[in-house]
Amino acid sequence: MKVAYKVWLENEGKAFGEGPYQLLRGIEQTGSLHMAAMNLEMSYQKAWNVLNDCEKKLGFDVIERRVGGVSGGGSNLTVAGKAFLKQYERFREDVRYAIEKTFHKHFG
Amino acid sequence: MKVAYKVWLENEGKAFGEGPYQLLRGIEQTGSLHMAAMNLEMSYQKAWNVLNDCEKKLGFDVIERRVGGVSGGGSNLTVAGKAFLKQYERFREDVRYAIEKTFHKHFG
Repeated sequence: MKVAYKVWLENEGKAFGEGPYQLLRGIEQTGSLHMAAMNLEMSYQKAWNVLNDCEKKLGFDVIERRVGGVSGGGSNLTVAGKAFLKQYERFREDVRYAIEKTFHKHFG
Repeated sequence: MKVAYKVWLENEGKAFGEGPYQLLRGIEQTGSLHMAAMNLEMSYQKAWNVLNDCEKKLGFDVIERRVGGVSGGGSNLTVAGKAFLKQYERFREDVRYAIEKTFHKHFG
């Protein structure tokens, strides 16, 4: 037997969970929303919907909007987006640890 | 912002989560599978499916099978079923506490 779970943040509805987390992490790692979406087998349009939804719920922009320049127009997280990603990553890791520990306490 | 989650046990697929938990608790409280299912707005057939599925995954019977007698044939949990329900209840409560605590640590 093992434990499984899903955790997410809510703010009048789902605000941020595993999907947006993976997308933001992908953008940070690849510097490209296109690449990040592709790696998650998510359409570009869907990726934008995910970003727009979570920005609305979180109350701040997570990705920089800028016109593609000589650089080819990659995508970057905003300062607030980067900080939130780190914060969520620590939360996510602590949740994983806490749930595994609780599972082993009762069923280990 | 608040935290939301789902937790369940797996054993080659979903073994036990909130649905079976609520059903078992209902049977223990009402002494009736009919009542327990009705209170959860679940059909009697669905309730049996939930019980059969979780018994197969857990590897023991959770509900006593007996023919309805003069008592009208209520339903009772087996000794193993009662013990598991208590064990899961403590696990579930600890998970709730651990996740709330982790959430407040990072976002409180």
